[in-house]
Amino acid sequence: MTERHDNAVNNLKEIVDSIYNHMRLGEIPTMELSTRSKKNIEFDPKKSVWTYGDMKTQRTAKTVTGATMMLRTACTVQFIEDMIKSNKSSTLREMYYISEGWGHGKFNSQDESNLLAEDLEIMSGCMREDFKLRPEEDGARVMGDFTLTEMTKKGERRKINCLEDVGESGYGVPYNVEKENVQFQGGNAKFIVAVETGGMFDRLVENGFCEEHNALLVHLKGQPARSTRRFIKRLNSEMGMPTVVFTDGDPWSFRIYASIAYGAIKTAHISDYLATPTAQFVGITASDILNYDLPTDSLSDKDIGALNSELSDPRFRDEFWISEIQAMLDMKKKSEQQALAKYGLDFVTDTYLPEKLTNMGIL
Amino acid sequence: MTERHDNAVNNLKEIVDSIYNHMRLGEIPTMELSTRSKKNIEFDPKKSVWTYGDMKTQRTAKTVTGATMMLRTACTVQFIEDMIKSNKSSTLREMYYISEGWGHGKFNSQDESNLLAEDLEIMSGCMREDFKLRPEEDGARVMGDFTLTEMTKKGERRKINCLEDVGESGYGVPYNVEKENVQFQGGNAKFIVAVETGGMFDRLVENGFCEEHNALLVHLKGQPARSTRRFIKRLNSEMGMPTVVFTDGDPWSFRIYASIAYGAIKTAHISDYLATPTAQFVGITASDILNYDLPTDSLSDKDIGALNSELSDPRFRDEFWISEIQAMLDMKKKSEQQALAKYGLDFVTDTYLPEKLTNMGIL
Repeated sequence: MTERHDNAVNNLKEIVDSIYNHMRLGEIPTMELSTRSKKNIEFDPKKSVWTYGDMKTQRTAKTVTGATMMLRTACTVQFIEDMIKSNKSSTLREMYYISEGWGHGKFNSQDESNLLAEDLEIMSGCMREDFKLRPEEDGARVMGDFTLTEMTKKGERRKINCLEDVGESGYGVPYNVEKENVQFQGGNAKFIVAVETGGMFDRLVENGFCEEHNALLVHLKGQPARSTRRFIKRLNSEMGMPTVVFTDGDPWSFRIYASIAYGAIKTAHISDYLATPTAQFVGITASDILNYDLPTDSLSDKDIGALNSELSDPRFRDEFWISEIQAMLDMKKKSEQQALAKYGLDFVTDTYLPEKLTNMGIL
Repeated sequence: MTERHDNAVNNLKEIVDSIYNHMRLGEIPTMELSTRSKKNIEFDPKKSVWTYGDMKTQRTAKTVTGATMMLRTACTVQFIEDMIKSNKSSTLREMYYISEGWGHGKFNSQDESNLLAEDLEIMSGCMREDFKLRPEEDGARVMGDFTLTEMTKKGERRKINCLEDVGESGYGVPYNVEKENVQFQGGNAKFIVAVETGGMFDRLVENGFCEEHNALLVHLKGQPARSTRRFIKRLNSEMGMPTVVFTDGDPWSFRIYASIAYGAIKTAHISDYLATPTAQFVGITASDILNYDLPTDSLSDKDIGALNSELSDPRFRDEFWISEIQAMLDMKKKSEQQALAKYGLDFVTDTYLPEKLTNMGIL
């Protein structure tokens, strides 16, 4: 049991203690936590990430729902403590199923148990990873001349160069990317290109983009897992590697960028830990669709709704994003990064990325 | 350009030649290929896999659609030849976008280009991989005491033990798992457990199932990629490793098993190459749901439809499957493999798998 986990157990116990003490004094237990919505995120100029503001949500055992939440909280804390003591970890899905045995504390859906896990993070100031709770999603793949060490199951540190020591599929980012597991050594790779789709990741690898431009490619697999965002954050802050994000050109991809650069709304309490404020968006932008005359699809109603809600999202409140979002709403079109293949398999590495990265001062 | 690719180009050219010759002789070009539907798959007793029967589908340039198909075929063959000659590969998605430049030969949707790629396999007797066409999906993760060698990007063979030389996320199966890229050496692992979900894969790894029972775990990531099925097939036939499939208990998971053991309907022309006829289904079965009193969800109408269509699927026409499918229809319930966590994190490795694998004669 490491210090991190030790500390997590203590902080969780305090939460349960306070419930217990309320009851011992004959008071109705209450819990308070930050309101987790778009309305309650604020820019933290010191850390230059978006975090929760002062709006609080009260939970009280006055209602059956509230009381049930307290019971679940207690059961969950117990489960986490047992898990840490027996040196296990579990997926959020497993915790949901294990709650089957908690009587009235049972969760009705996994959304409830996922949310509680995040609530416990906010109340305890610890990380879900400190609780030994894992998501199902696996992390990203990484390719480029960069050496790191990772603990093997045998408990030995293994040195891996993410270009020379890996097969075609690259280095797989584990769910625990903290120093105890992953340590950085460095290499020729000088900047990070975070790529949304596997197809484009493989394209950049095959075209030798890593070698030619000393780039470290990180595959995001759509909305990036926490471990992926944390991995990028650590590379950026510890190794000083500039970071660009390369996604499809649609509202959902804009959110992928935002979750990397600004922090996600759901996890704003740990933006500081996950977000890479200096990450820049390389594309696909609405302007790219026009400038490069890319194949497009029409925006669906859901796309349009997402773009409009981004216009009211404080994270997107800057000139660049307002104009790009507006431009996309005006043309009513979206496009994919692989649409660049319209000009052949080399266009993205011979023309598009060099042009854009030069303008951004990365190349 | 390897012999495989060389051969692919020649066979593809023959297809285009025959179109050309038809036209030269003033005939209307036609193409013929196996009908790719449930009605046209037959059991091949020699290879004991399901392949296409004698039903043929005619394509003729008499209609505009037919003529367009011929044009697309010619453009696609040209594209594949250029790609192979310039030693590139591309994703199916990229090929779809590249067709933007093919005028009337342009594909209207990626389904069309994917289907044509499979049609070309049937007509040429080659593999999509020989055409250097890749899917987006990445392959599985593998964990267990088994050593293989893989070509690194540097063109050197790297030896990887899938237990000792890998991090938490295991060995990532590349899209090309042929001998030229991946070669097997062996190890203590004696049988294969193909696992549907990442959460269960991680559970078996954390509980030390590989070491305790000399198992090689392969993560299927839902419906397994071709590379994953081919990887399992090669392990099974070359290394003589018995294979069991461990999935959720629902109709879609039954199809995952069928695609591994019997061959998928879409790719029945290469079942021989992808399918592992001796693979056994370990669960979750309808009987498991009853015997272990697992948490369940109700079957949706789509689930019920899928189960009924499986009853009319020749691949499921044996006692075991008919009774399991019927039992699931009767109880109107499905369950997930992680539902075993109801009995704690160790139940699956201490009780469930040992019990079932012993009954199956694997342990």
